[in-house]
Amino acid sequence: MTDFRQKALDYHALPTPGKISVELTKPAETSRDLALAYSPGVAEPVRAIAEDPAEAYKYTAKGNMVAVITNGTAILGLGNLGPLASKPVMEGKALLFKRFAGLDSIDIEVNHRTTQDFINTVANIADTFGGINLEDIKAPECFEIEQALIERCDIPVFHDDQHGTAIVTAAGLLNALEIQGKDLNKAQIVCLGAGAAAIACMELLIKCGAQREHIYMLDSKGVIHTRRDDLNEYKALFANNTDKRTLEEVITGADVFLGVSGPDLLPPDALKLMAPNPIVFACSNPDPEIKPDLANAVRDDLIMATGRSDYPNQVNNVLCFPFIFRGALDVRARMINDEMKLAAVEAIRSLAKEPVSAELLKAADIDKLEFGPQYIIPKPLDPRLCKRVAKAVAEAAVASGAARIELPKGYME
Amino acid sequence: MTDFRQKALDYHALPTPGKISVELTKPAETSRDLALAYSPGVAEPVRAIAEDPAEAYKYTAKGNMVAVITNGTAILGLGNLGPLASKPVMEGKALLFKRFAGLDSIDIEVNHRTTQDFINTVANIADTFGGINLEDIKAPECFEIEQALIERCDIPVFHDDQHGTAIVTAAGLLNALEIQGKDLNKAQIVCLGAGAAAIACMELLIKCGAQREHIYMLDSKGVIHTRRDDLNEYKALFANNTDKRTLEEVITGADVFLGVSGPDLLPPDALKLMAPNPIVFACSNPDPEIKPDLANAVRDDLIMATGRSDYPNQVNNVLCFPFIFRGALDVRARMINDEMKLAAVEAIRSLAKEPVSAELLKAADIDKLEFGPQYIIPKPLDPRLCKRVAKAVAEAAVASGAARIELPKGYME
Repeated sequence: MTDFRQKALDYHALPTPGKISVELTKPAETSRDLALAYSPGVAEPVRAIAEDPAEAYKYTAKGNMVAVITNGTAILGLGNLGPLASKPVMEGKALLFKRFAGLDSIDIEVNHRTTQDFINTVANIADTFGGINLEDIKAPECFEIEQALIERCDIPVFHDDQHGTAIVTAAGLLNALEIQGKDLNKAQIVCLGAGAAAIACMELLIKCGAQREHIYMLDSKGVIHTRRDDLNEYKALFANNTDKRTLEEVITGADVFLGVSGPDLLPPDALKLMAPNPIVFACSNPDPEIKPDLANAVRDDLIMATGRSDYPNQVNNVLCFPFIFRGALDVRARMINDEMKLAAVEAIRSLAKEPVSAELLKAADIDKLEFGPQYIIPKPLDPRLCKRVAKAVAEAAVASGAARIELPKGYME
Repeated sequence: MTDFRQKALDYHALPTPGKISVELTKPAETSRDLALAYSPGVAEPVRAIAEDPAEAYKYTAKGNMVAVITNGTAILGLGNLGPLASKPVMEGKALLFKRFAGLDSIDIEVNHRTTQDFINTVANIADTFGGINLEDIKAPECFEIEQALIERCDIPVFHDDQHGTAIVTAAGLLNALEIQGKDLNKAQIVCLGAGAAAIACMELLIKCGAQREHIYMLDSKGVIHTRRDDLNEYKALFANNTDKRTLEEVITGADVFLGVSGPDLLPPDALKLMAPNPIVFACSNPDPEIKPDLANAVRDDLIMATGRSDYPNQVNNVLCFPFIFRGALDVRARMINDEMKLAAVEAIRSLAKEPVSAELLKAADIDKLEFGPQYIIPKPLDPRLCKRVAKAVAEAAVASGAARIELPKGYME
């Protein structure tokens, strides 16, 4: 076993198993404390909530609590290993929610039979939480699950593998287009991969101005076109009325390549076929569709992003999910709607154009970060992210009617 | 609003809503930390658990995590106010688990349609936890729910309102019988109330040696006898083949009265009818079936217990549930079986016979605590409870085959 692998196991096992604990936020030492925390004092907030359900946000941890919920059917790049095996990832996500946005977060692994059974289980426990982050659920079930839960729950339900990825990708891509002098609504886009992330990315790009007919999506059988009869309803939305059938055909003259597929699936020769000043997001993780060194050797007019932290322009969901929930929960949003997602895109995008502090440069171990081909999206450790993104999201929630309360005074100032 | 009621509300609302938070147990500051906690490092424990599910106890918080799960149908003495309103109570229980036994505990409120729907929901999320504490679920559904979940889950499932109450009651009662010079297997027992706690108490007393035919249980319609045709299957087990129909008739000559019913339901005149040296557990909370001052004025040969902290002999579930889960989880028990429950009874019972420390006397604000009519069960704040009860339970789990691992070396020494 490599040193890193052993370190990862030790990190999880020592000194105590796992990464999260539940702690008390109120005194609980004396009999007097306990009489307030439990019987008989606890009857007071119970009565208050029974009278007005909104009081749950005042008297319980609900309003700061995000559940990270999975069925373990698509764990990272590891596949369907089941709910129990996914637990370290879900606890890891909970850790990120706390670390980046101060949200209390607990993982829930669901061992279900049918998709409907999963939906029902999650809907049944939703009262417990302020929001639900769905995670690592395979496509196409994830679409039905998310949609059904959004309809059944009165709290935000957000499948991060879809929308977190889409928001960060859109933010980076819009900046890359700006730098390359291209318009999104004219851009020819190739999307290699047709899973949850791919479909969510394309849908959000269309909301940002991309033209559906300019998008060529490919699954394992090649280009998704209108003559195919093997498409699920989600892929079918991207069936292009084209005679092109191969990656080489669709990438010729394309402005944007988005890979959410697998390692080394973009051949250097295909990259050569793209339009001048192309944009390549090779987001397969940990091994991208084309290695940055190789891509840059093939073309010098390229803007490139990957999912990796050891290259410039890391597309990382942590730029979004902690803060979109932070903003949503702080105004007790009923849902995370398109307005809130687009506000997150804009906030992330604009932060990359601002100068960064010396501390961040040091933490990122880099000499300079200046808006340009090597810096199109903020770094995950940028401490300004929470304020900017959460505030933008909360404002959008209020403006769009998703919020139950106004922005707290001086919010995130 | 009284001062206490306002204090209880403030305790829950200030400075932050609720009583619990989720915190990180591992470093999560640097990129290096995060690479271990999440992608790519987290893949290692995922693989390990996929290969051997037991590794979840090593690499995740599962083994120290107890879910407090309810549907809010029987909240304290407040009745069926629904899942959301029950949240302060469930968070309070989570607080007690942490405070008394160091267990991480999270509340889950379930908003279900049918009983089967509740069972299914809880079973589906059970992988997440090391144990499940069911709470404030009304009878008779609670019996079916607990039984079904015990069968479906491979972790301890324990309905505290039933068994926690039963264990603490049995511990106190056995000591009271000893002091009064009575035998449990000869004792005539009146149980006023026929809900979850009543039935569980009587079942456990029978396992301790009480005779079923010596038990008279009463519900709101009077004595439960074999001629009644309105009994659910759980009450029916206590149908006594008797001509007696009223409390007065069955309490005449009785040795033990257990009240799990409502305030002031034991008239002083009925108390006078009991056998010499009777035992009265008036556990309706906060207002007992007979006030201790009144009871003691009627009879001076009495041993009395209540659910209240401001009288001697408080029957309080917190003497049991944190520690029975502590012991069960520490040997990764598959269930909490009768052997473990009886071990808890014995451990709680015997602790009352040991001298208490000056610190505890001070904390309990009392001059002396000496085994006798005024001190038959330990005080909730007795710091020895965790070691004694958890150890006894863990040992019983190992001896009875419920445990997955042996007792850790030097456990609770």
